[in-house]
Amino acid sequence: MNSKLENLWEEVRELSLGTTPQIDRLHTPPTPLQFLRDYLSQNKPFILSASAATTLQWPATTLWTSTSYLLNALSSSTVSLHLTPTGQADSLTAHPSNPDSLCFASAHVQRAPFSDAIDAIKASRKNNSGARFVAYAQQQNDCFREEYTALAGDCDSHISWATEAIGGLPEAVNLWIGNELSETSFHKDHYENLYAVVTGEKHFLLLPPTDVHRMYIREYPAAQYVYSEETEEFRLEVEDPVRYVPWCSVNPFGFSNEKEKEKSKFPLFYNGPDPFQVTVKAGEILYLPSMWFHHVRQSPDNRGLTIAVNYWYDMRFDIKYAYFNFLQSLTCCKPRSHNSDSFIIENVSDGDEIIENNEQD
Amino acid sequence: MNSKLENLWEEVRELSLGTTPQIDRLHTPPTPLQFLRDYLSQNKPFILSASAATTLQWPATTLWTSTSYLLNALSSSTVSLHLTPTGQADSLTAHPSNPDSLCFASAHVQRAPFSDAIDAIKASRKNNSGARFVAYAQQQNDCFREEYTALAGDCDSHISWATEAIGGLPEAVNLWIGNELSETSFHKDHYENLYAVVTGEKHFLLLPPTDVHRMYIREYPAAQYVYSEETEEFRLEVEDPVRYVPWCSVNPFGFSNEKEKEKSKFPLFYNGPDPFQVTVKAGEILYLPSMWFHHVRQSPDNRGLTIAVNYWYDMRFDIKYAYFNFLQSLTCCKPRSHNSDSFIIENVSDGDEIIENNEQD
Repeated sequence: MNSKLENLWEEVRELSLGTTPQIDRLHTPPTPLQFLRDYLSQNKPFILSASAATTLQWPATTLWTSTSYLLNALSSSTVSLHLTPTGQADSLTAHPSNPDSLCFASAHVQRAPFSDAIDAIKASRKNNSGARFVAYAQQQNDCFREEYTALAGDCDSHISWATEAIGGLPEAVNLWIGNELSETSFHKDHYENLYAVVTGEKHFLLLPPTDVHRMYIREYPAAQYVYSEETEEFRLEVEDPVRYVPWCSVNPFGFSNEKEKEKSKFPLFYNGPDPFQVTVKAGEILYLPSMWFHHVRQSPDNRGLTIAVNYWYDMRFDIKYAYFNFLQSLTCCKPRSHNSDSFIIENVSDGDEIIENNEQD
Repeated sequence: MNSKLENLWEEVRELSLGTTPQIDRLHTPPTPLQFLRDYLSQNKPFILSASAATTLQWPATTLWTSTSYLLNALSSSTVSLHLTPTGQADSLTAHPSNPDSLCFASAHVQRAPFSDAIDAIKASRKNNSGARFVAYAQQQNDCFREEYTALAGDCDSHISWATEAIGGLPEAVNLWIGNELSETSFHKDHYENLYAVVTGEKHFLLLPPTDVHRMYIREYPAAQYVYSEETEEFRLEVEDPVRYVPWCSVNPFGFSNEKEKEKSKFPLFYNGPDPFQVTVKAGEILYLPSMWFHHVRQSPDNRGLTIAVNYWYDMRFDIKYAYFNFLQSLTCCKPRSHNSDSFIIENVSDGDEIIENNEQD
């Protein structure tokens, strides 16, 4: 483990982010200046309490708790539905032709009438408990404004203090409807993200971009789930020709039941500072800064759904981004090969060199 | 030379700063939001034209061109005066007991009636042209508000858009009165700096904090000039016990006439991108971001003086600062020893390791 990287992880917490797993909680909405100065400029997350987020004034807060309202409003809408065997999409899973190694599996995506999507989400159970699939209505392509136009009036089209601070409207607004089985693995986005939960709860684990080495980003062969309605089974197809996707190797809740094995594979993750943890409840808004690694789970409301809207604003590719890319170009551990989840952890002691990493993008 | 560092220097320019030696010039004052979003948050300098800086409305713009006004207003004031043999203070010079090596020399500082200070600045000539000293009225301890209270009404006590953006008044306001012989060597400050020139011109060379390795920051023994009015000579006294000061080794205008020797000693400086260059004329304001390396020369007005006021605002020690400290903890060249200006430049080829630097603070 390299002491210089450890110093970086600690210093950014001591100077700016705080040394506990909590993030700032605001009880009044920030002014655009406060948002820029205290959070966006510093690449620092916060959560805005429901009473301050003004989301409680959204019609969505009451209307979307009624499934019949949604079914009625979206009766003629077709939406993007993601199907997976277990709720983990854009996630690492056993390679179909080499179960000792991992691949990066994307969901089976299909367009479906909204009522079918709701039925599928309600029917979702883990396939090892007898059911067929886990469905998640979402698409990170501005789906709220593209597919859910009938709901446009139910929540703000943008977050006003963020829009004024950033100087432009959101690049994309995405809607997410799922249940507790859907989980999003650690990744980062090149957007400033305002994440509003409307019903249910979202549970985030967050790590700042300075901690990139703790994610063990490696390249994995891309694969897609293909679901057959006929057989009610999934097939996992690895792309041919092979395409490698850089992805975080760490699953904070473990790929296996062998916690000790995970710890020995990802010591920088397990031995470093705890991830920041935050639960975003209905009516609350999380500011998730650009380039932060985030892992998301969710809890449903009493009818079994979690619904959220997130606003993606363009990030600035400034000195912070250049620093990140430089940092990521250095590493202290090397993968043995592509298509493998086992790495050689170099015996780098305090004061030794940071060694070359030549396989990341 | 390490390709990863070179990539960093290039990327920050391509993404944010621009690839020419010019910085942004604004013709209208930024709003607090624009200043925060487009410059402070991005750690990016700009110059504000005289017509937009509102400095033309300062009484100082006309009043301070009259030396008799200044002498009258400050007739009972005592000010800090810096004396050096050649105009270079806080600068590297030959070590008095070992002329083959360098030390870090600070000016002889004395308090003087303002009229004596003006006389001294007017009498300043390089000592090799027969005169005794170069005088510079300045002190970076809030001297404008401490020593020049009689001039307080002549210019703004703060820069309003910066104060609103940063959320607080300046930590220090400093006045500088000198002539073309005074020069400030490459260094950085832990402040956001708004630098307003009132008469004459200031010529800045600027390098972003990402370029820290190009400055060859090394530790030099601290020394002070001591001036004797009796003999009209300077003595350079090295502190005992020795105290090492980390300082930029590069003088962009050369310590010697041997340009090729300088280039071979500081290849990262000479072979990398040109410094940003900006001349700040009377009435203009430079935003000099925190942690930027800057080298300053000046041209006098027609009576032989350059007068400037700069506003130091507290910087945020955020993720950018943590990234900088991490970057600075890495290096690709090693000094042979303390008390030496010659270094071993490691033969680090593209793709090789960045090696340990254990002598910087």
